[in-house]
Order: sequence, then C-alpha cells, then structure tokens
Amino acid sequence: MALHLQREIERLKKQILTLSAVVEDNLQKAVKSISDRDAKLAQRVIDRDFDIDDLEVEVEEECLKTLALHQPVANDLRFIIAVLKINNDLERIGDLAVNIAERAIYLSQREPLTVPFDMPRMASLAQHMLHKALDALVTLDPVLANSVCASDDDVDALNRETYARIEDRIRRDPDHIDCYINFLAISRQLERIADHTTNIAQDVIYMIDGNIVRHHREDARSDAPVR
Amino acid sequence: MALHLQREIERLKKQILTLSAVVEDNLQKAVKSISDRDAKLAQRVIDRDFDIDDLEVEVEEECLKTLALHQPVANDLRFIIAVLKINNDLERIGDLAVNIAERAIYLSQREPLTVPFDMPRMASLAQHMLHKALDALVTLDPVLANSVCASDDDVDALNRETYARIEDRIRRDPDHIDCYINFLAISRQLERIADHTTNIAQDVIYMIDGNIVRHHREDARSDAPVR
Repeated sequence: MALHLQREIERLKKQILTLSAVVEDNLQKAVKSISDRDAKLAQRVIDRDFDIDDLEVEVEEECLKTLALHQPVANDLRFIIAVLKINNDLERIGDLAVNIAERAIYLSQREPLTVPFDMPRMASLAQHMLHKALDALVTLDPVLANSVCASDDDVDALNRETYARIEDRIRRDPDHIDCYINFLAISRQLERIADHTTNIAQDVIYMIDGNIVRHHREDARSDAPVR
Repeated sequence: MALHLQREIERLKKQILTLSAVVEDNLQKAVKSISDRDAKLAQRVIDRDFDIDDLEVEVEEECLKTLALHQPVANDLRFIIAVLKINNDLERIGDLAVNIAERAIYLSQREPLTVPFDMPRMASLAQHMLHKALDALVTLDPVLANSVCASDDDVDALNRETYARIEDRIRRDPDHIDCYINFLAISRQLERIADHTTNIAQDVIYMIDGNIVRHHREDARSDAPVR
C-alpha cells in the first residue's frame, strides 16, 4: 500500500509540473502578444486554455482518488492537499493569461501606443516567481518558497506605479482612454498572477513545515487605492 | 467511527457558516462605507478581516484533522474537499471587501462625487449570490447552486457597463481621474466577489452530483476588454 501511495504521489508531482509548464508557456505567449500586437498568437493562448482546464480537472480527480484509495496521513496528506490548492491557483493563472490575450486582440485593432508601464519587468518577475514556486514544491525547499513571497512586494510596487503613470497618460491623451484602461487591467492581471504564485509558495511552506504564512496584511493592499 | 465522522462534518458545516456570516457582514459594511463616505466604518471592516483570516485557518486545520483521523471516502470525502475550497474562496472575498473599504477611506478624503455605476445593484446581486451558495451547501440543493452560477452573468454585464460609463465620466471630468479609477476598481472587486461565489456554487454542485461544471468559457471574459 505505501509503495502504491508513493507511486501515486510521484504521478501527481508529474501531473502538476505538466500543468504548470503549459500555464507558464501560455503566460509568456500572452505577454508577447501584447508587445508584438499579435492577435493570432493571442488567439492561440485562448484556445490552449482548454487544455489547462482539462489538466486541472484531471489533477483534482487524481487527488480525490488518491485520498479515497490510500487514505494518506501526515506528510503525504499535506502534500495532496497542497497539490489540490496549487492546482486551483494554476488554473486561475491560466484564466488571467487568457484575459491578457483578449486585451491583446482588442489593442491590436487600435492605433499603436507604447506600453505605458514596465510590462517586461512585471511579467518577467511574475514568471520567475511561478517557476521558483513549482521548483520549491518539487525540491521541498522552503528557502526558495520564501524568496517567492518576498518578490511579491516588488510586483505590487510596480503595479502601484502603473496606476500613477496611466492616470498621467489619460490626462495628456484622453482620446485613448479605452486603451489605457486596458493597459491598467493588464498590469493588474500580472499583479494577480504574482498573488496566486505567492499563494502557491505559501502552500509549499505550509506543506513542508506546517507553518501557516498566509495573511500578511499586505495581501489585500496589493491592488491599493490610487495615491 | 462513522458517528464521530458525522459529528465532525456537522462541526465543519457550522464553522463554514460562521465564517460566511462574518464575510457577508463585512462585505455589506464595505459597500455601505463607500455610499456613506464613512471612513470609520471602513476601518472596522479592515480590522475585522483579522477574524476572517483566523477562522479560515481554523477551518483548514479542522479539515486536515478530519481527513487524517477519519479517512472519509465517497460523499464525506467530497464534502470535506468542497469545504476546503469554499473556505479559500470565502477568505478571498474577505480580502476583496477590505480592498473596497480601503478605497472608501481614500474616497472619503476627496471631494464628494456620485458613484458612477450601479453599485447598489451589483452589491446586492453579489450578496444574494453568496447567501444562496452557502444555503445550497447546507441544504445540498443543486438547483439553488445552479441559480447562483446564472446570476454571475448579470454581475459581469453590470461590470462591463461600468467600464463604459467611467470612461465617459473621465472624459467629461478629467480632474477626478484618481477617484474614477478607484470606482472602476470597486466595480471590479464586486465582479470578482461574484466570481468567487460562483466557484463556491460550482463546488457545491460537484460535491452533490460529481458533475464538474467549471470552465465555462465566460469565466475569463467577465473582466473583458473595454468595448
């Protein structure tokens, strides 16, 4: 029985890594579709999200099956619960990438504008966080997981900066309010992706040492009032 | 053993209802703090969120304890997994109420403006959805849960309307861009609250009949590009 359970856990690890690889790839393509004004690439991101949804359902069913058949306790139980929650966050990151891609299609049909915030830096931070959080899950590394939580503050700061910058742009160029509001939303989606990634890292920490690190007061303020 | 497990499940039901009652109350107060420009009430919402965070941690620990001690299968297992996920969504709804309250404090310090979108209707829809979703969990009523999912479209439509209205307001009154961007965010937070509530209803449906109703294509589009 224990051997079967260990095999199931290895299988779950592989499944969640497959899911996260597709999510990472889709996120990277969604951001590229904004900077390249590439509506076709954006449509590919949207279509690929069906695979992400299917993978999420598979992981959840596998978790439930493992819980029912092997009735794991202690570390194994915590691992499976962590995978269940991480699975959920990955799927939502996938949805946010779709939302970015939908805005890419919209923006590609409007007059070209320079992106009014540091999208490359925000996107690369969020992508690195996601990659590290999943590495931390696989290697059971709490130090790595903690470093993910720390990076969330940088993304929050960049998002706050975006608000100020875009407010200024709208003032100077009110003819493109619709585009600027879409850019604002893209910045916010990247910030929410970093939040979900932080949730993943916190679940990894909890799984490793039973220490609940959620509920820093900062969480709710990440998308804070303008000025 | 089975009797103990049933007692545990009753206990979990009570805990999740306590949590949802506090979340509902905090959401209602957060919206009131916007319409009444009441910074003190908003601060009470923010302070109360600590209780919500504590309750969420308690529910999660109770779920893990029940899984480890009683090793439930079939319906009982599905119920506990549903509570774990619903718990998570309730806590995030709590965070979104805090975000609305923070904006109430900001807006109360600025010149009074009429709320530029149908906030009472959006808020009341979201609150009703939340109440019905929890009712559906307790009464195991899939019809009620389905009606929650249907209401989500109405909230999404109102949120899309807000974008158009606020774009227009900014054009006519650019001196208050900062306030309008905050109102836009409040509308979006209400829309996200309705999304989390829909997740809850979908988990209830899954728990009752094993039918996965997630992943309608509409989900990601709820916060869709402007025009």
